[in-house]
Parts: sequence; C-alpha cells; structure tokens
Amino acid sequence: MDNTVVTLHGVNDLRMEKLPVPEVDRDEVLIRVTKVGLCGSDLCSVYKGTHGDLKIGLPCGMGHEAAGVVTKCGQDVTHVKPESAHRRLPDSVSDEEGAVVEPLAVAVHACRRAVVWAGCNVLVTGAGPIGLLCLSVAKALGATNILITGKESGHLPATANTSSDIKESRLTMAKQMGADHTLLATSGDAQSQAQQVQQIMGCQPDITMECSGTKAGLTLGIYVTKSGGKLVQVGVGPSEVTVPLTHAAVREVDILGVYRYVNCFPIAIDLLAKKLVDVKPLITHRFNFEEFQKAFDMFHSAEDGAVKCMISC
Amino acid sequence: MDNTVVTLHGVNDLRMEKLPVPEVDRDEVLIRVTKVGLCGSDLCSVYKGTHGDLKIGLPCGMGHEAAGVVTKCGQDVTHVKPESAHRRLPDSVSDEEGAVVEPLAVAVHACRRAVVWAGCNVLVTGAGPIGLLCLSVAKALGATNILITGKESGHLPATANTSSDIKESRLTMAKQMGADHTLLATSGDAQSQAQQVQQIMGCQPDITMECSGTKAGLTLGIYVTKSGGKLVQVGVGPSEVTVPLTHAAVREVDILGVYRYVNCFPIAIDLLAKKLVDVKPLITHRFNFEEFQKAFDMFHSAEDGAVKCMISC
Amino acid sequence: MDNTVVTLHGVNDLRMEKLPVPEVDRDEVLIRVTKVGLCGSDLCSVYKGTHGDLKIGLPCGMGHEAAGVVTKCGQDVTHVKPESAHRRLPDSVSDEEGAVVEPLAVAVHACRRAVVWAGCNVLVTGAGPIGLLCLSVAKALGATNILITGKESGHLPATANTSSDIKESRLTMAKQMGADHTLLATSGDAQSQAQQVQQIMGCQPDITMECSGTKAGLTLGIYVTKSGGKLVQVGVGPSEVTVPLTHAAVREVDILGVYRYVNCFPIAIDLLAKKLVDVKPLITHRFNFEEFQKAFDMFHSAEDGAVKCMISC
Amino acid sequence: MDNTVVTLHGVNDLRMEKLPVPEVDRDEVLIRVTKVGLCGSDLCSVYKGTHGDLKIGLPCGMGHEAAGVVTKCGQDVTHVKPESAHRRLPDSVSDEEGAVVEPLAVAVHACRRAVVWAGCNVLVTGAGPIGLLCLSVAKALGATNILITGKESGHLPATANTSSDIKESRLTMAKQMGADHTLLATSGDAQSQAQQVQQIMGCQPDITMECSGTKAGLTLGIYVTKSGGKLVQVGVGPSEVTVPLTHAAVREVDILGVYRYVNCFPIAIDLLAKKLVDVKPLITHRFNFEEFQKAFDMFHSAEDGAVKCMISC
Repeated sequence: MDNTVVTLHGVNDLRMEKLPVPEVDRDEVLIRVTKVGLCGSDLCSVYKGTHGDLKIGLPCGMGHEAAGVVTKCGQDVTHVKPESAHRRLPDSVSDEEGAVVEPLAVAVHACRRAVVWAGCNVLVTGAGPIGLLCLSVAKALGATNILITGKESGHLPATANTSSDIKESRLTMAKQMGADHTLLATSGDAQSQAQQVQQIMGCQPDITMECSGTKAGLTLGIYVTKSGGKLVQVGVGPSEVTVPLTHAAVREVDILGVYRYVNCFPIAIDLLAKKLVDVKPLITHRFNFEEFQKAFDMFHSAEDGAVKCMISC
Repeated sequence: MDNTVVTLHGVNDLRMEKLPVPEVDRDEVLIRVTKVGLCGSDLCSVYKGTHGDLKIGLPCGMGHEAAGVVTKCGQDVTHVKPESAHRRLPDSVSDEEGAVVEPLAVAVHACRRAVVWAGCNVLVTGAGPIGLLCLSVAKALGATNILITGKESGHLPATANTSSDIKESRLTMAKQMGADHTLLATSGDAQSQAQQVQQIMGCQPDITMECSGTKAGLTLGIYVTKSGGKLVQVGVGPSEVTVPLTHAAVREVDILGVYRYVNCFPIAIDLLAKKLVDVKPLITHRFNFEEFQKAFDMFHSAEDGAVKCMISC
Repeated sequence: MDNTVVTLHGVNDLRMEKLPVPEVDRDEVLIRVTKVGLCGSDLCSVYKGTHGDLKIGLPCGMGHEAAGVVTKCGQDVTHVKPESAHRRLPDSVSDEEGAVVEPLAVAVHACRRAVVWAGCNVLVTGAGPIGLLCLSVAKALGATNILITGKESGHLPATANTSSDIKESRLTMAKQMGADHTLLATSGDAQSQAQQVQQIMGCQPDITMECSGTKAGLTLGIYVTKSGGKLVQVGVGPSEVTVPLTHAAVREVDILGVYRYVNCFPIAIDLLAKKLVDVKPLITHRFNFEEFQKAFDMFHSAEDGAVKCMISC
Repeated sequence: MDNTVVTLHGVNDLRMEKLPVPEVDRDEVLIRVTKVGLCGSDLCSVYKGTHGDLKIGLPCGMGHEAAGVVTKCGQDVTHVKPESAHRRLPDSVSDEEGAVVEPLAVAVHACRRAVVWAGCNVLVTGAGPIGLLCLSVAKALGATNILITGKESGHLPATANTSSDIKESRLTMAKQMGADHTLLATSGDAQSQAQQVQQIMGCQPDITMECSGTKAGLTLGIYVTKSGGKLVQVGVGPSEVTVPLTHAAVREVDILGVYRYVNCFPIAIDLLAKKLVDVKPLITHRFNFEEFQKAFDMFHSAEDGAVKCMISC
C-alpha cells in the first residue's frame, strides 16, 4: 500500500508526491480514495493562492470532494469495517456520486438556511456546479418555480458519459435538472434584469440563492427578491463588493450567509439514494489520477464547458 | 381653527402655508399637532431631495414625528373622543415624549428583528437619535453588555432643559442612557477597530445595530459580529456601498433589514409609560413653530450638537 | 339552472332541497360544483351534531371539499371567467383531485407548522384520509423515513376505479403512497408501542403528526417523539383527553396545533400538478348526487374500508 | 476540613452524614457550600420518592440550589482560584441570591422558550417560587401586562428578614415583585375563570406560563391563551392529566415544554447583578444547617406560608 497525493506548493505549482501511509488513531479510519471531484475553490487555491479572505497554507493537500473505501480502522471504531460489505454509501449511490456529496451538502445547507419549501419561488444566480446543485435541492424540496441565470459558457463537449456528440449549454443542463426557467446573464443593468426575472417568473422570488460569487448576482438578488424575502450568499466572491445594501435594508430582504454545512451529509446521501436529486449530468469530464494537471488546466480554462471534473484514483 | 403647515417645495425651499382644514371621513380623526420632532430623514428631504433610493414627491408636508390632540372624529370612530379626558398617551407620557414615539418604534422594531434579549452583547454603531434609541431599547430588554460608537460631534450647549451650562458629548449622553461602553469612531481601519471593540466588550457582539448609515459602520459590524450573529441595518446609507460581504457570508453573520415598524407604537408608548426608556435627554433643542427654518438649519449644521430638535406648535 | 343542495337539519337528518340560485355580488363568483368529497368531520356533523368543541348550526349545507366550474362572475371579478377555457386548476389536475385540494391543504399546513424537511424522520399516527395525505406531503418534502400507524379496517372492495378485485388494506395503501414503514396500531400500552416504533424506524421520530384524533395516538406521540421534537395535533379528538403531558414537557416535545390552513391551496394544487403527491388511490368509492344518503351511511359504517368517498354532481 | 452532607435514604428518611472530602480531578473544583435553598422538587423526593415520571435513586445527596466558595482547583483550572478575591458572583450578588440562581435560570429558560418580549401580555398560573421568578423575569424583559394566579396559602410570618410582623400573602408578594394583576385561583370552572382573566387583563394573554403543575392551571391556560399564542409548561405535574387538548389544537395554542435550562446561569446572574430581578422577597425563612429536618418539615407543611427556605452551611 502506498500513499500518492497531489500537493500544492505555490501558485500554479501542483506536485504528485509519495507520502508515508498515515497511522490510524484509536478513533480514526484510513480511507483509500477512489474518486475525487474538482471544485471552483480548488481553482482559487491553485491559480490565485487565496479563497475570498482566506490565504491557503502551503504545502496543501488537494481533493476535498472525495469518495473511497475504508482500509483500516482504529480500535475504538465500531460502525464501519474495512470489508467491502460495509459500504456507508447505499448501494444505489455510486462512488462518483459519493464524491459529489460534499458540494451537494453545501446546497442542502444553503436551502436549509433559507428554509426552501413547497410553493417557494426561487431564483438561483449562477449555473456553476453549486448553482445547479442548489437548483436540484430546491426542486427536491418542492420549490414550485425556479429560475436560474447563467452564462453561455461555450458548449459542452462529447465526453465519456455522452454516447453521442450532443452539445449542451449549462442552461440546457439546468433545464434537464429541473429549472422551470433559465435566463442568460447579460452585462445589462441589474434593475432591468430584475424586471426581466420578475416577468419570466410571474412574480418576485421569495428566495434568491446567489451562487455566482459576483457583484452582478448580488445586485440582481437585492433588487428582485420579494420584500421580506431572503438572499442567501452561497458563492464566495471578492473580499469587497459594491452593492445597494440600503435597498435590501428598507425592503427587509435579509442577506444570509452559508458556512458550508453541518449535519447535511446524511441528507445529501439520502437525496441521492432516493433519486430525488440526480448529480450525474454534472459530471462532464473524467480523468485518471496521473492526468491531474490536465484536469486542473482544462477546468481552469473553462474552454470546454467543464462543470464537474472527476478524477479516478 | 386654521391649518398652518410647513411644506417642502424643492431642495432647501421650505415654506409656511395656510391650507384648508381637512374634512374628516367616517373612520378618520382630525389631530391638532402640539409637538413635532425633526428627524435625519427630514434633513435628507430638505437638503438633498432624496432619501436613500427614494425620491421625495413635491410639494411634501413636513413633520412625521408628531404628537397632538384629537379635535374632531368621524362618525364611525368610537375609541377616541375630542375631549381632553380621552388622552391616548398615558398620563405619565408628555407630548414631547409622544413626539418621540415614532423613532422609538423604529428602535423597537430593529431590536425585534434581531431578537435582542436578556444576556445579549450588543454593538450599536452611530450615536445619533436612532442609535441612542436602539441602545435604550436594547437596555430595556435586558441586553447585558452594550457598546455604542459615535463621533465627538462638538459639545452640547446649555439648553432649555439643562439647568446649568454643563456640556456633554453624545457619548457621555450614551452613558447616561445606559451604554456599558462607548468608543470614539475613528477613521482607522475596520479590522483594528473590530479588535478594539472586542477587547472593550470582552467578547464579540451577538448583535450589531448599524445606526450610522455609513460604510464604516457596516464594515465594522461585518468584521466584529460573532459568527452566527446578526447585523441589523437600521441607518439608511447611500444607494451603493462597498463592503466585505463575503466575510459576513462565510461566518454566517446575517444582515437584516428594517422597514420602519409594525405594531411597535404600543410597545414604544409602554416603554415610555413604564419609564423603561427615557427619551428626555435626547431633546437638546426646542423651537417655536415660527422658528422652523432656524431649527432645520441648526440641525443641519450639526454645529451645536443637536440630537433631537423639538418644535412646539 | 337550479340549485339542489344537501342540508343537515338535525342528527341523522339529511335532506335534498332546491334553493334559489344565489345572487352574485360584485366581487363574487357562482360555482357549479362538479365533485364533492366526504370528510370525517361531515360524519361528526351528521351523526353527532358536534365536532370537537364546536356545535353545528342548523340547517347546515353539506360539502366543503368541492371542485366545480365558474358559471357567473360579479362585475369586479377579472381573474376568472365563466368559460371552460379559464380553468383555475391546471390541466393535469382532474376535478376529483380538485375536490381533494381542501384536505390536502390541511396536510400542507400541518407539515408547515412542524417544518417537515429533507432528512426528517416522521411518524404519522392514523391512516385515515388526513393521515395518508400528511404522509404524502411529508414524502414530497423529502422526509427520509416515515412510519404510519393504522388499524386494519377491513379490506377495500373492488370499486369503480379498480380494474380487478384486488383488495388492499389501508396500510398497504400507505405503502403505495410512500410510507417507509407501517405499523398496526394495537390496544397495547403506549410505551411498548413507542419502543416498537423506535425499533422499526431505527430512531425516534423528529416529528409526529397525530392524525387519529385519539388518546392512543397522542400518548404514543408524546412517548416516542425525540426530545426537542414536535408533535402536531392534526386529528380532532374528544373535548377532553387524558395524556402524559409532563412527559412531553420535561423532554421539550412541543405540541403544536393546526387550524386548517392559510395560503396552502396554491401549494396543494402545485403538488398535484407536479405529480409530487398522488391522491387518486385515496378515492375508494364513487356515488351519484342522488345517492348521498347511501354515501354517508357507507362512509359512517366503515364496513367497506372507505377512505375517500367522492360524489359527482 | 470535613464534608457533612444531608442524604435521603428513603421516603421521609433524611440523614446528616460525614463523607470523605472528594478528590478534585484535573478539570474540577471543590466548592464549600455556604447557602442552600429548598425546592419543591426536594419535597417530592423526600416525601414521595418520585418527581413526575422520575424515580429518585437512593441514597441521594440533597441540595441542588446552592452557592459557595471554591476551596480547591484541579491543575487544568485557570479561570477561578481558591482566593476570596476570585468571586464568580458579582459583588452586588449575595450568597443567598446566588443560591437562587438555579431556579431563576429555570424561569429564564421558560421565558426564552416562549420568547417573552416587550409588549407581551403574560399569564402566570401558580404563585410558588417558580411562578414568582417567571413573573420577575417576564417583567425584566418588558412584558407589559402580567397577571399571576395563586392560592391564598395563609399569611407569611414575621421572619428574620422582616423588621416587623407585617404579614403578606403570596399574591401581595407577587404585586411587590411586579405583577400588574393578581387573581385568587378558585375551584370554579376553567372557562369562567378564563373570562375573568381576560376581563382583568383587558385581553387574552399572548403567553401563559403554567407554574402550578396542576390540571387546573393547564386547563385555564388552554382556554385563555390567545389563538396562536403559547402555553409553557414550567410546573411539573402528575404523570397523566386530563385536559382539553383539542381546544388548544384548533386555536393553534402551542404547548411548549421546559427542560431546565442551558446557558441561562450567566443571564440569571446578570439579572440579579443589574437589579432587574429582586429575589430577596422570596426568601421567607432561614435555618442553620443543623435545622435541616425542621426546614423540610415546615416547607412541607406549608402552614407558615414558606416560599423559599434558605439553609446556611
């Protein structure tokens, strides 16, 4: 058994390294990772060295969206065993889906903070992986009317999981994942875009889930959310941003934050197991472990319409 | 009986006018105003013609912080009568205090939105009338530890209600009104100011009530409020403001708005009647009705440390 | 056009009567009812003359679970027209389903009061129409683990909507409607039944929806609901009931009431339109308008396993 | 240093015993108790051997309402020292008041569960120590209108803390502690008593704090609390109780439980330190440690109007 990892040593300096296999403490387990997804925050770490206000400590092991198998258990561990028979993911959830549980848990927590519920009208700004997952979870919770905004970020290529060369934009993907409406985010002013959203939805959204991490998304959310509604900041944006906060204040549009999740993994797994959320369309590209640099570069270039890149270990 | 009013006809164009006495509809009452307080939003209307995003329609009658006596009732009105014996304010509340019920209701609503409660640590940014009222209400609700920030806006003059020429700054006034701590807002950076607040309070505030309507107040609130705490935007600031929203998001500091009040007048009156809140120290200047222009100008100049100017009608 | 109605004149005294067609006020519409469902509360009215603490005023028009078509509009009505083209129910919702919107709205409100959400473990006590609808709505909201208790109330007969003579018990129906587990309510003591529920569910329920209106259901809910959980009283029981309230108190199991619904009809219609809830299995018996007495008597006798009886007008 | 304790060995079998002085673990402190208050639950333990559903394990050390001084600290303890200078109670709080912090924390938690706030109309049923403390805390939180019910349990005797032989009933004590209204609980029916409460308060209470632990208190609370209001079960009653639960359900009067407190001690101490709550009137009787049996017997007999008996150690 060896322990080969990908570590970040500086901006744009990823290295494959062999490290000793870690010792397992009494209450720990050792996991052999089988699948890892790439996340937008990985791009921030690798190509900018920061993530919002956070500085990345170096060297930094990569790969926080992972699934794997338990290979060793500390002596106090009783609820799992290093046998294939003791799978914590239900049989109906694949390892690739398992590697999406982490970002899906972010979406679950975001929906929980805003109490998305049956009958809610929801705007999602930003059709990246997190935006698409928020859309899926809101749909699974019975939200009645969901509009998602996004950029036409090129066309998706034929990939290992498309049997033909059908090319789909992210907004088409959003429709497949349950969006009632989609809107191409333009560079126009936020107020006219707000009117457009309202016209398409037939109402102002009760809840806006801001998943683009941009000033444009926040501003649209502030203008269009119903008085007394909620704007959830899911996307992580720049350190400072210029926004019409007073407009939110006098209409009591509350701006809620999201610090990842707590107790959301079981819910995320349950949504996958019950097929209430389908994350498979998100996985647009697949790579072997040795191709990690290629995976990062292509995800970063965004040329090829990558939504979720999955690495097999 | 005549109906003399002060009306705004344009920026810095206030006029005293005689209008017909209004007819009273079946379910209306006619009130002869006895006391009117001036509000910061009056200054915005008069000297800028706008208030946040709102444009002021012209001509605009001035004086929304008022107390008075009912002089006529429509035929369906049964709960008040135009007799001095039917006072809606309790005996223990003067007409001047009655004219402060409106801004006090803003403070009650702001505290209600954040659910200020016994044991709360509260930061109030801005020691203007609304900040001082928020402080007073938070105190009355049992908040344990309140720090208010403010500017040393000159010294208060001897006025009709000071028996000597004791000069007090607003922060000294804040101490009298129940602040546990005060801090002079400086032009320093928000993060070091946040450390200072935390050091003085002995903890991060659970709740920040932003009453200055400034970028500085919002930024301080975002940095210093406890993770999972609340920042209430009470002060109305500029249309756009540059703030570290991501910092609030990742620490789940929720930013709540305040649209005035609903069902808060009875609570405000009750707090006054029970002497749980004392608004008398706020009233620093008094004018006759004919001196309205002088009142506005002096309040606007801020030279004389005016907190609340009261006009007798 | 005539107006034939069924009116209650006393205990067990239902009469078919011809009344004048009502005038339509400016803001009213006249509706020709097409389908009416019978409700347990109708049985209380007809056979006992009371419903919980409420006395039924006589004479009393029957039929509060109804669907129909608008035949006339007052002059101020603009959002519907007496044309078949202006259907307020979506095309995907039949009139029979429309007649179930009212009780479905009760279930929506009950789930909203307890904030049923993804990942919730829910116990429903009582597999009558309301219990089955609560189960369906909880399922649609993402509840992960639902157990419903009920009585084996005989077998359902072959009816107009069963193409063969398959006979199903209510608990089998519950499984079809999404229950993860079912449990036959026995006359055993509540504490051992609570242990049984916990064993089957693998945990204590976060939320119990009491839909049986019985002491047994309430007592089970009080014993089995997780500390800090919620017990929603949906079923209407006797005026007084003997329950272990202290047991709920010291474990902070909050007991919430349900007064029908507010703003729940659109949600109920949306759940039907999106096929998130399927109410068709509930409709076990169908009658013509002239057979109303037979419908009431058979529903009352409970001999034939009637869940929801639907009358065509 | 010795360790003399009072231990319960069976129903009505209290014994004074000398035990070894306990060892202090790394993160523990040893406290020499100076004052202990007697609680109603002590009476249940001593004279019945049960408390609600709970059986008392024997032998059982008595005295859970205590104040004292730290005499020894484990090596990891840094925030207190066994020096008189390191008092955790503020100087303004006496040891006797410190011994009331525990039941006061119960009242704080009960008020927090119901979110008692400025402007609330509050009914407290039962004028025992917990009822009187709930009254005091509700008052400190700004509740506007409080009625407390109680029995005329004889007159309070002249005691060490009364300088004359003024005799006061509990309801008079309640008035001194801030009750706006008091009402003698009679054996009359709950509905007419509810009308009486409503007439005296001028409205239905938003919140009822049931502190009597009786069917009568619960029933009154269910009938009189405003639709949509809250009934908090603070008093611990019999295992089973017969109440009109349906009446609460259809009016959405939510019945909330109280399991002691969490994070309420600092709030209770703060209320005492700031003189927002005055518990001194509660302490009607004082005893030396050797008189413990006399203290229990007199508290149990209730002959002498004891509210809170305090034992000096």
